[in-house]
Amino acid sequence: MVTKKVNNYVTSIILLIFSACTSTSNQNSSSEITSIQSVLEKQTIGWNNGNIQEFMKGYDQSDSLQFITQKGRTVGWQNVLNRYVSSYPTQKEMGKLQFKNLIVTMLDNNQAQVYGNWEVTKDSIFSGNFSLIMKKKTEGWKIIIDHTW
Amino acid sequence: MVTKKVNNYVTSIILLIFSACTSTSNQNSSSEITSIQSVLEKQTIGWNNGNIQEFMKGYDQSDSLQFITQKGRTVGWQNVLNRYVSSYPTQKEMGKLQFKNLIVTMLDNNQAQVYGNWEVTKDSIFSGNFSLIMKKKTEGWKIIIDHTW
Repeated sequence: MVTKKVNNYVTSIILLIFSACTSTSNQNSSSEITSIQSVLEKQTIGWNNGNIQEFMKGYDQSDSLQFITQKGRTVGWQNVLNRYVSSYPTQKEMGKLQFKNLIVTMLDNNQAQVYGNWEVTKDSIFSGNFSLIMKKKTEGWKIIIDHTW
Repeated sequence: MVTKKVNNYVTSIILLIFSACTSTSNQNSSSEITSIQSVLEKQTIGWNNGNIQEFMKGYDQSDSLQFITQKGRTVGWQNVLNRYVSSYPTQKEMGKLQFKNLIVTMLDNNQAQVYGNWEVTKDSIFSGNFSLIMKKKTEGWKIIIDHTW
């Protein structure tokens, strides 16, 4: 009887710890998702101010950054910047950018995937979808792979 | 002098351990890359035998599997299978598949990205590129996200 009581007590404590851990993990995950969304929001603000450097802060400033389209793969932060500048040389060309229907999937504590739609409005509306792989670095969440159509 | 000798000795040991760790890590990484390539090779063998079930073994049999194209996102192993069966209903439609120019990037010990080109030859040649996110599971490396154009 005593043993059963002790067992119940131990089980309750284990369940309590487990529940606390799960809850903390969900809270962490939810706070990471908010941080990730905020990086993308800052990117659109930068873009819509015609500030490509601000937009580029969402990307990992690394030589291994990948930007993939149907035309192929661009590797390295500087090359990705050059590609954007060449495709959108003026603020008028940049138009107004919106990210829509973002779905964030945590791959682990420090890596996440973001699926979503992009829409650029200038004379007409251009749109497509993308999937990003983002990594949590000391300076915050950064895109390390951008596959955009 | 003695202190210097001891210091040198300690430094040598640290360097030796570091070098051993780096070497092991590179060997591990190289063996993971070989395992990943072998999963994709088995997929093409399955495909080229008209065996879509064998091809599908490369994908994580999970409800969270993602298959992304310019048309949108398909979620779940069964839905991805249905999509393939609907797009390629016969072995003739499937043609002969080749993966080319594979570049594997380890994201960490258990996750990797694969960039590459696909080519399907039937009456004519169809081709595109893709990036995969693969995860090392107990049953081996599996594709968890496929972004294909």
